[in-house]
Amino acid sequence: MYSQTAEYALRAMACLALRPNVLVSTNVLARETKVPSNYLSKVLQTLANAGLIEGRRGVGGGYKLSRDPKDTTLLQVINSVSPVERITSCPLGLQNHGPNLCPLHRRADMAAAAVIEIFGNTTLADLLTNSNKPLCDTEKTAKLSVHGSLTR
Amino acid sequence: MYSQTAEYALRAMACLALRPNVLVSTNVLARETKVPSNYLSKVLQTLANAGLIEGRRGVGGGYKLSRDPKDTTLLQVINSVSPVERITSCPLGLQNHGPNLCPLHRRADMAAAAVIEIFGNTTLADLLTNSNKPLCDTEKTAKLSVHGSLTR
Repeated sequence: MYSQTAEYALRAMACLALRPNVLVSTNVLARETKVPSNYLSKVLQTLANAGLIEGRRGVGGGYKLSRDPKDTTLLQVINSVSPVERITSCPLGLQNHGPNLCPLHRRADMAAAAVIEIFGNTTLADLLTNSNKPLCDTEKTAKLSVHGSLTR
Repeated sequence: MYSQTAEYALRAMACLALRPNVLVSTNVLARETKVPSNYLSKVLQTLANAGLIEGRRGVGGGYKLSRDPKDTTLLQVINSVSPVERITSCPLGLQNHGPNLCPLHRRADMAAAAVIEIFGNTTLADLLTNSNKPLCDTEKTAKLSVHGSLTR
């Protein structure tokens, strides 16, 4: 339904949503999301370029969400790294098809619409409403420190 | 919703479904599907390995469907190159989650279920039931020769 990069971006955003207004280092995010640090660095840069997160370099630096978790949908996160788009005209550019999709691409468009609806109607805040928090070992989550790292 | 390779596989299968029981060369398929020939060769080999098509080498050789278009779903085609799977346990392997998905991966599983339903309930034969045939310029399709190539 979405790329591996989108999965990693969603994990990172969910991790940051668990610690609003706290700068979380790339190393902590990499550990929590189980994403290789180098790969995650690029994903985080893309998310920053899209305006979804903001970072600060140096000691005590890291990333935090740039807005309230209720104002960012999962679709916005996915689209910042690998857009899911409706199909509005023949992907092969066939003149006789144009906007009249053939049955194959009509099905593909139906699937895109379903995916867009599910992720477009879910915000980061929606992920935090029950006790089974995303990405986090329940026991460890209870011990989250204000510095965004885990007390162990 | 699916990979570029899956899109190419679907195009190739739709093209073959338009010519049941006719061997179609990779070159003709590449032209019709607008997929680079080298890339398409690998996709066709994967489809053959999955038992969805069968080929014959040499002069007059090519590929044809290995069974009736009504017996192959679009999901089977997609799964032969890049499987779409339901999420049955935490992708991060978190012990406290296990089969109880967090809200993030529950949404991802909902999207997978929607995609699987749409493509699993559509056969290659379903793509051929109206006049707007997949991948084919309508005018050219009317002139399809029995050799699987187009009369121009």
